Amino acid sequence: MIRAGIVGASGLAGGELIRLITQHPDLELTFLGGSSHIGSRPAELHPGLRIDPGLTVQPVTEDIADLVDVVFLATPAPVSADLAALLADRVPAIVDLSGAFRIRTPELHDRWYPKVKRRADLADRFVYGVPELVAEQLPDAALISLPGCYATAITLGLAPLTLGLGLELRTVVVDGKSGSSGGGLTLRTADLHPFRSGAIAPYAPTGHRHAAEVGDFLGRSKPGSIGSLSMSAYGVSHVRGLLTSSYVFTNDAISQRELQRAYLRFYKGHRFVRVRRHAETLIPVPDPQAVLGSNFCDVTVLLDEEGGRIVVLAALDNLVKGAAGQAVQAANLRFGLAEEAGLTMQPLMPA
Amino acid sequence: MIRAGIVGASGLAGGELIRLITQHPDLELTFLGGSSHIGSRPAELHPGLRIDPGLTVQPVTEDIADLVDVVFLATPAPVSADLAALLADRVPAIVDLSGAFRIRTPELHDRWYPKVKRRADLADRFVYGVPELVAEQLPDAALISLPGCYATAITLGLAPLTLGLGLELRTVVVDGKSGSSGGGLTLRTADLHPFRSGAIAPYAPTGHRHAAEVGDFLGRSKPGSIGSLSMSAYGVSHVRGLLTSSYVFTNDAISQRELQRAYLRFYKGHRFVRVRRHAETLIPVPDPQAVLGSNFCDVTVLLDEEGGRIVVLAALDNLVKGAAGQAVQAANLRFGLAEEAGLTMQPLMPA
Amino acid sequence: MIRAGIVGASGLAGGELIRLITQHPDLELTFLGGSSHIGSRPAELHPGLRIDPGLTVQPVTEDIADLVDVVFLATPAPVSADLAALLADRVPAIVDLSGAFRIRTPELHDRWYPKVKRRADLADRFVYGVPELVAEQLPDAALISLPGCYATAITLGLAPLTLGLGLELRTVVVDGKSGSSGGGLTLRTADLHPFRSGAIAPYAPTGHRHAAEVGDFLGRSKPGSIGSLSMSAYGVSHVRGLLTSSYVFTNDAISQRELQRAYLRFYKGHRFVRVRRHAETLIPVPDPQAVLGSNFCDVTVLLDEEGGRIVVLAALDNLVKGAAGQAVQAANLRFGLAEEAGLTMQPLMPA
Amino acid sequence: MIRAGIVGASGLAGGELIRLITQHPDLELTFLGGSSHIGSRPAELHPGLRIDPGLTVQPVTEDIADLVDVVFLATPAPVSADLAALLADRVPAIVDLSGAFRIRTPELHDRWYPKVKRRADLADRFVYGVPELVAEQLPDAALISLPGCYATAITLGLAPLTLGLGLELRTVVVDGKSGSSGGGLTLRTADLHPFRSGAIAPYAPTGHRHAAEVGDFLGRSKPGSIGSLSMSAYGVSHVRGLLTSSYVFTNDAISQRELQRAYLRFYKGHRFVRVRRHAETLIPVPDPQAVLGSNFCDVTVLLDEEGGRIVVLAALDNLVKGAAGQAVQAANLRFGLAEEAGLTMQPLMPA
Repeated sequence: MIRAGIVGASGLAGGELIRLITQHPDLELTFLGGSSHIGSRPAELHPGLRIDPGLTVQPVTEDIADLVDVVFLATPAPVSADLAALLADRVPAIVDLSGAFRIRTPELHDRWYPKVKRRADLADRFVYGVPELVAEQLPDAALISLPGCYATAITLGLAPLTLGLGLELRTVVVDGKSGSSGGGLTLRTADLHPFRSGAIAPYAPTGHRHAAEVGDFLGRSKPGSIGSLSMSAYGVSHVRGLLTSSYVFTNDAISQRELQRAYLRFYKGHRFVRVRRHAETLIPVPDPQAVLGSNFCDVTVLLDEEGGRIVVLAALDNLVKGAAGQAVQAANLRFGLAEEAGLTMQPLMPA
Repeated sequence: MIRAGIVGASGLAGGELIRLITQHPDLELTFLGGSSHIGSRPAELHPGLRIDPGLTVQPVTEDIADLVDVVFLATPAPVSADLAALLADRVPAIVDLSGAFRIRTPELHDRWYPKVKRRADLADRFVYGVPELVAEQLPDAALISLPGCYATAITLGLAPLTLGLGLELRTVVVDGKSGSSGGGLTLRTADLHPFRSGAIAPYAPTGHRHAAEVGDFLGRSKPGSIGSLSMSAYGVSHVRGLLTSSYVFTNDAISQRELQRAYLRFYKGHRFVRVRRHAETLIPVPDPQAVLGSNFCDVTVLLDEEGGRIVVLAALDNLVKGAAGQAVQAANLRFGLAEEAGLTMQPLMPA
Repeated sequence: MIRAGIVGASGLAGGELIRLITQHPDLELTFLGGSSHIGSRPAELHPGLRIDPGLTVQPVTEDIADLVDVVFLATPAPVSADLAALLADRVPAIVDLSGAFRIRTPELHDRWYPKVKRRADLADRFVYGVPELVAEQLPDAALISLPGCYATAITLGLAPLTLGLGLELRTVVVDGKSGSSGGGLTLRTADLHPFRSGAIAPYAPTGHRHAAEVGDFLGRSKPGSIGSLSMSAYGVSHVRGLLTSSYVFTNDAISQRELQRAYLRFYKGHRFVRVRRHAETLIPVPDPQAVLGSNFCDVTVLLDEEGGRIVVLAALDNLVKGAAGQAVQAANLRFGLAEEAGLTMQPLMPA
Repeated sequence: MIRAGIVGASGLAGGELIRLITQHPDLELTFLGGSSHIGSRPAELHPGLRIDPGLTVQPVTEDIADLVDVVFLATPAPVSADLAALLADRVPAIVDLSGAFRIRTPELHDRWYPKVKRRADLADRFVYGVPELVAEQLPDAALISLPGCYATAITLGLAPLTLGLGLELRTVVVDGKSGSSGGGLTLRTADLHPFRSGAIAPYAPTGHRHAAEVGDFLGRSKPGSIGSLSMSAYGVSHVRGLLTSSYVFTNDAISQRELQRAYLRFYKGHRFVRVRRHAETLIPVPDPQAVLGSNFCDVTVLLDEEGGRIVVLAALDNLVKGAAGQAVQAANLRFGLAEEAGLTMQPLMPA
């Protein structure tokens, strides 16, 4: 058994990590860390979870190195930055779910994460962990930075165009729609149920740092493949799951048939990315409700001939494939386990 | 009192017309028509409405001309086309809420409404009724075609750019998000509560006829002002209200300050369009929940300098400003009433 | 015009009072008071409202007596108690929406409102304002205490049995179900959208002070008419509207037909209470969605012969008939206006 | 591997059975049956599920006996009755999720299931499958009738009082609240999202056949333990999960402490029933969101001293512990597998 610790156990991503690790055949939960709720048991903070009552939330010190083989940081970016520095050479593997180490380009990092001082020594050691795209780098990776929830969907949606087909994407306009769990549990009046229910909240209409992250990663992976990439993000009236719509303008000619084939080919063998036809089921897909609770990312690509664009839709559960599930997937690869170990749960639909 | 009739009384737009007309100080509801539910009373079909029990749904014949000064057609486009032909010269005013007469350009009409044979004689007599943009044409207009719900929001959002500022919009990408009431009451498994709740349903990912309608109208109003306009439409997990996001690329340079001023100037004196700053209240706006039940359309314009685009957001209640409310507003102008007569209700929030 | 002031303008009931008063033909909003958000304009706090920008939130002093004919207190009970003492003999009418003066029996008051010191001098001057039941006391009433939202529904549901039919209700079990707006805007993790959406929250399973209030009022109105009355309250997954189910056991024999007739007779002439048959429309009623945004209380009475009980269901909008709407209704009667003045809006459904 | 077949594969319970069986370590899905959608693949009908594409929906004949060790009937009661007769002596185990064989008392059966002719020969062979209460009868049971979703919750909630403590429950009033998935996928206007969202629908205000089922089972298990049991059922505004509130009046005296201990003792060793304290977590429990997607039934018992009653609350996922999960749990016991095999998934919360 691989011994796993979670820091940030009281938040939503922390709870989801507990859910997945306690269901995992090869991981064992041995440490829960946090800076608040010290002494609390997980079931007090996460009302649904069944968990052995012995574990309680504890402060994080370097001594946790004795307790864990891997530590998942579900902490705010500044905290993750500090903890990574503390634990980097003491713990065999760190999987950071925050944005602290996502953006590699220094000036981009500083711009989008002004409160997280960049640590050049550490930053370059982190692998940007979209398992489908960097699978060969994950075995033995000591430091893994998980992409953002939106960034995961956008990147998995666009990669077949740039990395697979080699298209040059002149302009990409991303419209992201997310449920309320994407905002965490911070107490804000706008996030109380009366105001958040029924909303279409344009909370980031002119930019989102996940877009910068996608540009940074795809640009490094294939220089010149993306011209401009802009994004707007909206909160809609459900709890879990997001959809990203990437509207792509390219000068390269391509047919719907070629697109579909390229996507199928690109994700062949990657069980967590499902390339789906828009009308293959009784609801239009991709729709995040069809991946709820699972580690799937459903992707659909459509040529809009009249609009002169390619429409790429990607849906995932922001707490699973967009956070805790992808973290476990990366850890699986890190430790040589089956990629899908502990992640075989089917989507829960309807819910 | 202006005597008003409604055809299509059993649907959602029909119910909303009943709501507004029974609250209107100068309109009197004198006829309810339909092809089904003959003999039913409105309260059986619309569980909330209080209405004098004398009115029941009746078949439509040319004799209704004796009963009404204005008839609102809340009927499917093919039915509206037939009824307009039947009633056009018998009733002083017809307000059609369907798409039968929205698109003026014949080939565009035939493409998007292939099942609605175009009647050239009638088509050219219809005024495309966005009151804010065609106010001078509405007095004495005998035939009024109401824009679609999305089209209203998109058009009100873009008009200050094209008609006000005279910009040339090279590329416009529209992302529309709507609640479930936009789909009416047709029985479809995908629209049952278990499947529609929690959904982000990409139901029209590569095109929507409301986009064609916007292009047709704005193109006629100011030839050359719009290059390409593409649209994708999504159903999200609430009932009433929509938001359109128009991502605009233009070669013309303009500042946020100029944009804001231009929008305020363009809608000065138009009480139903509220030009709002994104952060002026405790939730980000525009958000359809802030216009719920009212005839307002809230519009926000933002320069995304880094993205090289203008972001125009417009929110409205699809059954009010996107349908019944705008219909009443147009009828008010048609009959010389105050534009806001019967439409002064405040938004209902939270709900 | 009657000049109206609102204290507690930043809360949900305060916002609803603004909505209703700004739509009212005979009331004029002349003062907004509060202890926080001083200087704020209502539209900042209530994102949907249109309101003249001159009014801002101000501290309450006795000087407001010059500005208002009636003041609505949408404040916590301890604040209402203090403000009532301050303003009682200075302002022609006070309508208190809190629980400060609802329970007349001293020991009951002290038990359920231990933090609100009972002021015997004031308490006995307050009229308990269910307009349908105390209409004759409201003209010229200087001090009006509005019932709680649940209490309004329960009382209107039971009154025809006790006050109308004279039954003795041996045991009444009340199950109350409310949307999230009933909880106000206090910041609590459990009320954030992710946790409140999808919930059936048994927040008051063994008692609720609204039950005490009902027992106190009905007991005073007709001594001995109610044996035991217990209540459990639940938060369910919508925003606005509540339903109370009163399961009534009585030794008196009565038929469904007699019950229906008695309810119709009892509420004859009271337009805001609609006695409805369970299956009279396409959804089962009463359902709070069928009264949304309106001042209606829909009531249905059913004899459950096999269960040996009478089932009384009552639905209302907790912010309208359960708070601001009933407050305006009471003020209308106080000032000799038409009871329905400013309250003729139809329900908004679907929403 | 135990070979499992599902009949009624296109419905919600059928989909949930597919979800659970495809995740089960010891069950193998070998047959999908139905009377509609013949030839369809499960993923077309259940948009989220990943499943080997070889299986398609097929008509049911007696030949399926060669393909399955156990068949789950997720079919309407009349269909289940016919299929049980067809397959009873051909298939080693039948688990029927319908109401066809739930009520043992003939006259009660005929009254609540008038369209399902009682087959005396078969009826007496069926075990009423609440595993926690009849565990010793399930090994080798050839015919298992699963309780209804409400009945499961009510029975698990009351059993510690009657079977454990031996109390005599003079009067029990049950109030059941369920999400929309309880109504299945039948096309009804009232169940379209616009009308079902935001509803508190009193769909069975004066009785529900699940109450008859509970009375029948508990009455047989302990004659005289329940006097009158009445029920009202409501649809509330979420999708999955139900809560039953049983308000119990008894002449027997008991303390909160004794109740709590009795419940803990009664369910000791039964991992799927969690006896929880009302305030043990940051939301009040039991709440169905805290068991979502899992096979847990959370139960809380509270003495309401002032109300003179015991309040028993029970929450479960109507598609899991209320249907497919309990079916798998019963099959596990039938075939000597671990009771929790395939059912160890944690609740998904928030969702």
